[in-house]
Amino acid sequence: MRDMYCGDVTADQLDQTLTIAGWVDRRRDHGGVIFLDMRDREGILQVVIDPDTAEAFATADRARPEWVLQITGRVRARPEGAVNNDMKSGAVEFLGKQVTVLNEAETPPFQLDSHSKVGEEVRLKNRFLDLRRPDMLNKLMLRSKVSASIRRFLDQQGFVDVETPILTRATPEGARDYLVPSRTHQGQFFALPQSPQLFKQLLMVSGVDKYYQIAKCFRDEDLRADRQPEFTQVDLEMSFVDESDIMALTEGLARDMFKDVLDVELGDFPRMTWHEAMRRFGSDKPDLRIDMELVDVADLMADVEFKVFSGPAKDPNGRVAVLRVPGGSSLTRKEIDKYTDFVSQYGAKGLAWIKVNDMDAGLDGLQSPIVKFIPDVVGDVLARCGAATGDLLFFGADSDTVVSDALGALRVRVGHDLGLVKDQWAPLWVVDFPMFERTKDGGLTALHHPFTAPTCSPDELRADPLAANSRAYDMVLNGTELGGGSIRIHEPAMQNAVFEVLGISEADREEKFGFLLNALKYGAPPHGGLAFGLDRLVMLMTGSDSIRDVIAFPKTQSAACVMTDAPGAADPNQLKELGLRQRVKVED
Amino acid sequence: MRDMYCGDVTADQLDQTLTIAGWVDRRRDHGGVIFLDMRDREGILQVVIDPDTAEAFATADRARPEWVLQITGRVRARPEGAVNNDMKSGAVEFLGKQVTVLNEAETPPFQLDSHSKVGEEVRLKNRFLDLRRPDMLNKLMLRSKVSASIRRFLDQQGFVDVETPILTRATPEGARDYLVPSRTHQGQFFALPQSPQLFKQLLMVSGVDKYYQIAKCFRDEDLRADRQPEFTQVDLEMSFVDESDIMALTEGLARDMFKDVLDVELGDFPRMTWHEAMRRFGSDKPDLRIDMELVDVADLMADVEFKVFSGPAKDPNGRVAVLRVPGGSSLTRKEIDKYTDFVSQYGAKGLAWIKVNDMDAGLDGLQSPIVKFIPDVVGDVLARCGAATGDLLFFGADSDTVVSDALGALRVRVGHDLGLVKDQWAPLWVVDFPMFERTKDGGLTALHHPFTAPTCSPDELRADPLAANSRAYDMVLNGTELGGGSIRIHEPAMQNAVFEVLGISEADREEKFGFLLNALKYGAPPHGGLAFGLDRLVMLMTGSDSIRDVIAFPKTQSAACVMTDAPGAADPNQLKELGLRQRVKVED
Repeated sequence: MRDMYCGDVTADQLDQTLTIAGWVDRRRDHGGVIFLDMRDREGILQVVIDPDTAEAFATADRARPEWVLQITGRVRARPEGAVNNDMKSGAVEFLGKQVTVLNEAETPPFQLDSHSKVGEEVRLKNRFLDLRRPDMLNKLMLRSKVSASIRRFLDQQGFVDVETPILTRATPEGARDYLVPSRTHQGQFFALPQSPQLFKQLLMVSGVDKYYQIAKCFRDEDLRADRQPEFTQVDLEMSFVDESDIMALTEGLARDMFKDVLDVELGDFPRMTWHEAMRRFGSDKPDLRIDMELVDVADLMADVEFKVFSGPAKDPNGRVAVLRVPGGSSLTRKEIDKYTDFVSQYGAKGLAWIKVNDMDAGLDGLQSPIVKFIPDVVGDVLARCGAATGDLLFFGADSDTVVSDALGALRVRVGHDLGLVKDQWAPLWVVDFPMFERTKDGGLTALHHPFTAPTCSPDELRADPLAANSRAYDMVLNGTELGGGSIRIHEPAMQNAVFEVLGISEADREEKFGFLLNALKYGAPPHGGLAFGLDRLVMLMTGSDSIRDVIAFPKTQSAACVMTDAPGAADPNQLKELGLRQRVKVED
Repeated sequence: MRDMYCGDVTADQLDQTLTIAGWVDRRRDHGGVIFLDMRDREGILQVVIDPDTAEAFATADRARPEWVLQITGRVRARPEGAVNNDMKSGAVEFLGKQVTVLNEAETPPFQLDSHSKVGEEVRLKNRFLDLRRPDMLNKLMLRSKVSASIRRFLDQQGFVDVETPILTRATPEGARDYLVPSRTHQGQFFALPQSPQLFKQLLMVSGVDKYYQIAKCFRDEDLRADRQPEFTQVDLEMSFVDESDIMALTEGLARDMFKDVLDVELGDFPRMTWHEAMRRFGSDKPDLRIDMELVDVADLMADVEFKVFSGPAKDPNGRVAVLRVPGGSSLTRKEIDKYTDFVSQYGAKGLAWIKVNDMDAGLDGLQSPIVKFIPDVVGDVLARCGAATGDLLFFGADSDTVVSDALGALRVRVGHDLGLVKDQWAPLWVVDFPMFERTKDGGLTALHHPFTAPTCSPDELRADPLAANSRAYDMVLNGTELGGGSIRIHEPAMQNAVFEVLGISEADREEKFGFLLNALKYGAPPHGGLAFGLDRLVMLMTGSDSIRDVIAFPKTQSAACVMTDAPGAADPNQLKELGLRQRVKVED
């Protein structure tokens, strides 16, 4: 029906007679001639229709935006002065001789070029039109290129693409599962997988050796801005490897893909321990594009009268730290109050600060509600932070967790607000994670997941679980966790030790993970892997604000699809077949 | 942990010192020396351990089948006479110097090389061991190669890989949907997609232009031998194309993939109309490896006294046909009775037959319960079929559908039983399908699906729906439908005409397909596509008997996973959150 894409016509086709097809992007009359901007996924071609081709002219005259036309004509150079260098086809125009209407179109509910003014609900309801916008189509195409690039790399490395089940058993990731009632086994339910974790470990037991899958995963969680009920994971696993093998492979994969798709050289990824990341950046996924760091000052504060600082400074689980904001003294009181509110989300009970108005004027050069409480140590604090005139220091003093979380988040927020985020790609590895962390109720939980191998023996693990490090690693890019993985436990004794420390009873182990424990008995090889979040990766690569922009048909924040009206009512007979009935809705 | 795969060690590595790792496939003592066959996914390497490396010898002596070992040693040529040309590594052996146990293994519940003697239930329960068998691993690896080959081809052709939702709305394929209760919208349900059909059409409306996806699809049907609740479809769609474009592309894809993966040249695919396929082979997916054809004889039977033949012969919806089985006269009465039972599954009320014992002896040379009823025409029938001494003729006389189905199935069955299936790949296209067929209750149903474009106008369609052909095409290989597709309806008027003919009310259309009808209004391009069943394709390519052999973790015929015990019980609290309660189970 056409010889090539509209957007691909250039001076290479000069004087050729071609047929093109696409959508009317714009139509205008100018000097008795009709100009049609014809659009397809590759771009726009300017078509000119003269009145001397009467039939074509009449058809073009009827055409309206978003009509689908097929046009045969000739490529010619644009007149001098009319060349548009912003368009690939901008040096030429297309003299249309024959115009066929392939489909008409009603006036769309919103102008494609004015999407920013219409609400997201309208865009999602008419997703088929929203996706026509070049910006959105380009995101879908880039996502496809990313997948293809990843697959090419892994295929070349001998990875086997294995599909694992979607209808499966509740998985142990801890989030809420989506359930699928079984008809043949009434009263029983499949769960949609939160990840293929256990299946990929079983594939290693089988000897697949190198597995990957671009896998759909599901979590029935209350949605935040960057979450979707279904999301996509680039999932891989290898046998007979250690941490360095997997990190080298996946770092190569990321480098290769960025080069391939964006022509960006990521270079070698620095490695940082989890402890260093928490200490310097208050985060296990530090954004290295921001130069600010947290500076610990507990030792200086231990003996001050000011209990707000000395208390946490003397508490072994406490932390006192400073975030120095270069040029931050220009912040208003109101802005500082806003940041105080912000850190309260992370449990901080306040946000002490010092403005360094004049570094050479001693205490008089400082503006602060707290300097008066710490007169003797403020000089040392300033010196340790490398404070300079014009800076603002924010203080955190609380439990280690609260201070790290609050100042870590504040660092990123302030960095964005003050334009302190460098325009670069900043990847790194975070390694040497603790194996466990304390839950709020005093128990222990695995920082990664309970199949992660610790660096110690089962006995050492039982003796002091909080001292154990795991063989996990996270790939971080620009403050986002792109991927996480670990070397897994391959011996039943160690797996049972971890379950024991986590307080999972033998009956529960058998019930939930029996098939994994069983598999480990029959010769599981040492193995490990990693999973990338594809949606987030593409979001970063396309500079998108929302995860919904990189998914063709996303759900809203209330986990619904406004285009298809899913979820919808079910046929009562079908519920009956499933052995279910609707509970009378009660408020509770 | 290793330098290369066990199975990849050949004479190229002669005299090199290497580390290998894998599973003990067999261990035997011979002349004071230990032989270990070390196995990984690439094959087996024979390792020899001498008693003079005492530590290695002691470890090897402890090792049992399926233990995981890491062995460092030297590659040396096998002694003359010990070369094994059936193994890639058969010219060499590996003199092990250091042996490390990476994991021990209990005695597996079945010997890996005796799987055929254990029931499938045991194999599926221990799938991680079943998959260790080289035959199974090779199937998984071939499947991965098939996917990679398809993706490579489509990526090169400019196709965009777009992921469509798994949590979606009930789709119109007609089978039973799997439902997923929504928690945020209590009383409402997502459905798992039976295919991405509507989404891919919407992507064409969006201008994606060339879409593909290797997509999981779901059907909650009672399972037959070759069905699974979840299956995989290679799904593609293109804009601004007609039938020939899509058939050329997908035929190229299939050819390329067979060449790439199996080194098989499929050649050009013949095309056959649906009517011809039904007439000659009684099937819309004829197996062209079998030379037998159905021969119509209604014209000869119209005037015989024998009502069993003359009735259908005179009925415009009837059919009388013969299947000539070369050499079939050697079949016993018992075998013929078995075929009579077989065709009764297809609605045939009997199976008349003639054995041609001696072609030159007139009626006396024929053995048959029916020749006496048709003495005057039997000569013409024999002549038309090209009967020869030793043949057996089977007769079908009933409605067109019953005769075609029964003799079509019998043809394939007898072909396999008598070894009449040629060892070749026999692809073809079946085209020019009727748009609709009659349902048992006298209504109409779409032979493909209601989005398939007919070859006529909306008015012609309404006037005589049964006369309308569709723009559909099926790719058939060796009697299996590999893929099916069509040019779709892109204009609302035609889509509404089809819904009208199918008796779908306007309210139902709006409720079920509103978003599609809506999308067609805003400038849908002409488009069409095709979907391949990946599981069946890989089944054919690997010569597997069961679809379960080409799926890593399949469900049993009762739609359960015996390894993970899915489906399983749900937490009552989670059901409550979903607004559901279990119906008391009643027999009905």
